[in-house]
Amino acid sequence: MTELELVRRIRAWAPRAGRGVLLGIGDDCAVFRPRGAREDLLFTTDLLIEGVHFLREAHPPQAVGWRTLARGLSDIAAMGGRPRFCLLSLALAAWTDRRWVEGFYRGLLRLAWREGVALVGGDLSHAERVMCDIVLCGAAPKGRWLRRDGARPGDGIYVSGPLGASALGLRTRRGRAWRLHLKPEPRLELGRLLRTRFHATAAIDLSDGLSLDLHRLCLASGVAAELDQVPVFPRATLEDALHGGEDYELLFTLPRNTDAFPRIGTVVKGQPGALRLASQALPPRGYDHFGG
Amino acid sequence: MTELELVRRIRAWAPRAGRGVLLGIGDDCAVFRPRGAREDLLFTTDLLIEGVHFLREAHPPQAVGWRTLARGLSDIAAMGGRPRFCLLSLALAAWTDRRWVEGFYRGLLRLAWREGVALVGGDLSHAERVMCDIVLCGAAPKGRWLRRDGARPGDGIYVSGPLGASALGLRTRRGRAWRLHLKPEPRLELGRLLRTRFHATAAIDLSDGLSLDLHRLCLASGVAAELDQVPVFPRATLEDALHGGEDYELLFTLPRNTDAFPRIGTVVKGQPGALRLASQALPPRGYDHFGG
Repeated sequence: MTELELVRRIRAWAPRAGRGVLLGIGDDCAVFRPRGAREDLLFTTDLLIEGVHFLREAHPPQAVGWRTLARGLSDIAAMGGRPRFCLLSLALAAWTDRRWVEGFYRGLLRLAWREGVALVGGDLSHAERVMCDIVLCGAAPKGRWLRRDGARPGDGIYVSGPLGASALGLRTRRGRAWRLHLKPEPRLELGRLLRTRFHATAAIDLSDGLSLDLHRLCLASGVAAELDQVPVFPRATLEDALHGGEDYELLFTLPRNTDAFPRIGTVVKGQPGALRLASQALPPRGYDHFGG
Repeated sequence: MTELELVRRIRAWAPRAGRGVLLGIGDDCAVFRPRGAREDLLFTTDLLIEGVHFLREAHPPQAVGWRTLARGLSDIAAMGGRPRFCLLSLALAAWTDRRWVEGFYRGLLRLAWREGVALVGGDLSHAERVMCDIVLCGAAPKGRWLRRDGARPGDGIYVSGPLGASALGLRTRRGRAWRLHLKPEPRLELGRLLRTRFHATAAIDLSDGLSLDLHRLCLASGVAAELDQVPVFPRATLEDALHGGEDYELLFTLPRNTDAFPRIGTVVKGQPGALRLASQALPPRGYDHFGG
């Protein structure tokens, strides 16, 4: 069972018809409209697990904390939202000493202070390996959030910057690529501009790699994509740029051309989710937790 | 470092002043008031970890799913709220097959359907052991939610039912105690009645054991407590009732006497958090994840 299959099954089983729930499983965030509220609320959760999303030896605790919050903020960015508050569930392992715990919170809270995100709750536990789950709540004007299912044939496909830095950094563990891997910058400002100024038809954040995330966007929108060129981070490989995850850039589609961002291809009619790069089929190969 | 100490430190470090945040770290739920909304929103997260909160051999997948949601619902109950929606982060292990995953969701969603809780999102991953984090959002009339810090000297201390069933059930793995352990019933209706009809001054849910949770309620309220008697579930020990966790009954304080619930003691002035049972000091000994 692949992750996509499992998500499909969960969607089929789960009750969706909660009062005020405007968008459920399947986008970067769920959307809830509180009774009488002047704005919609966006919700996302992201797991960070030792040995899967970070390595005890390689990642300093400050970086683990920063990346934890950045993951959640990136989902809010992809919907064009403004972050409001977060909750953190954290299971510590036997090896995590006071220095590690303080470093973790220092990294997470530095980004929280900068973005004006209150830490309002969570849960603490212990486990064999460190794991945490970040819950982010953001806000966007009523009905005006971005979603991943609005791409239309003819739209241009854009990314917010060169890709592959995170994969390169994790491999080499030095230079600017490593620093970008350790402290990714969620594209909050850009997400809001995509909504207010560029009238993006669809957006998603690049957490699992371009090929898989573009596949998801196209699948949700019922369209296919032709890629011409992909901006590759200096010294990263095309492989890093296409399939490496955790760049946390935004991928989006625009109805009109712009020079403000690198255009990487065009939305086309076709088998939903099918991707082509330079006229060759490009199978989605980003990170699937269930090996799909 | 004990869990209480760590929570104290996190509270000191974390930004609290988010717009709309009415209650941050330290109660069963955080409280957020969306701009213009007609009700306040309650948020809680709860971890459930294989080997810590459930055993692969002992707990059927349906029970793990049910208990996951029940843990979150119980926090909403303790604030007098009505549940609205949930998100679920789930990391599966190599041993979890399709049958287990389906059973888990069946258990969780049975309770979700019954309580009208939509499952709107989450995250999927893998880990060496199964772990999940449930995020619950509930609602309560503006400013009218219950909290744990309002107990006053002279208030009676009550519980919603006999205690120790869960600890007894886990030990014996049979009979009604085992069934209650596997399918705890969150006290949602009662939580709302405590708010609307009994004017409870403080409430908390009994997830970590009476002695520890009463200690927390008293600490938050700046008071001490004298216990006279504790209703013990048939065949459970006083130890089970005082220190066994996961009964998910509510513990609350009322300004006036009532026969509707078992009265177990009285709020008194004294060292904040200090407990006495039958005139003997009762140290809090419930479940602390950091062995404090």
